[in-house]
Amino acid sequence: MLTRIDHVGIACRDLAEKIAFYESTFGLTVASREVNEEQGVREAMLHVADAPAGSSYIQLLEPLRPDTPVGRFLERRGEGVHHIGYGVADITAALAAVGGTGVRLLDERPRHGSMGASIAFLHPADVGGVLTELVQAAR
Amino acid sequence: MLTRIDHVGIACRDLAEKIAFYESTFGLTVASREVNEEQGVREAMLHVADAPAGSSYIQLLEPLRPDTPVGRFLERRGEGVHHIGYGVADITAALAAVGGTGVRLLDERPRHGSMGASIAFLHPADVGGVLTELVQAAR
Repeated sequence: MLTRIDHVGIACRDLAEKIAFYESTFGLTVASREVNEEQGVREAMLHVADAPAGSSYIQLLEPLRPDTPVGRFLERRGEGVHHIGYGVADITAALAAVGGTGVRLLDERPRHGSMGASIAFLHPADVGGVLTELVQAAR
Repeated sequence: MLTRIDHVGIACRDLAEKIAFYESTFGLTVASREVNEEQGVREAMLHVADAPAGSSYIQLLEPLRPDTPVGRFLERRGEGVHHIGYGVADITAALAAVGGTGVRLLDERPRHGSMGASIAFLHPADVGGVLTELVQAAR
């Protein structure tokens, strides 16, 4: 079902500073920057590598306000890994299959993600403490 | 410098239970199981996908004892993402380059990792709260 590690989402306090760090320290390159008002984040996707089923990225996330999911995460846990996003070929089918195993879906239907992808989150309490995202890339 | 997301390391309390979960829920397959006494973990690498520069895995980690790095992580944070491992072509060169930027190295010299890889960890406080591992795969 999972075609790749699409991205690892990392919560940070200063997006510009963290982009500069990943560029200069590890040589990553920015593939996209966007603001997602629905999720309350300013974000960047940094390209790590290509895979046959799509690319892998580091997603840096800065909250737009403290009263957002990533804002509350930073308050509670500090900077660090926020979630893992896995590539799937068909997110509707994947959600039905995963939901059928008893894992709770935070998104019953896909919504808008980075770079035009369709995404949905699974409940971390049902995935061993890992906030898990399914990602169907834009065509 | 980074050739891929080699793996995401996830701390868990019951390795066999978590392997069964990832197999049945997401269709991942076990690529290797080993005990690393030096690091105090029992672990499995679950294959997610292949990339031109190597594969990506989910690494499940169960501590051998409470007084180990992963045991202390579970006590402090509970189950969840423990670290990110990135592929590099030459770990000695990568450590010199990253260390030269001021990031503290937890391992000055590579040591033994999963599936015969040479690995080294970077200080999470210097990588935005992310425990970061560099991985040169075995030939």
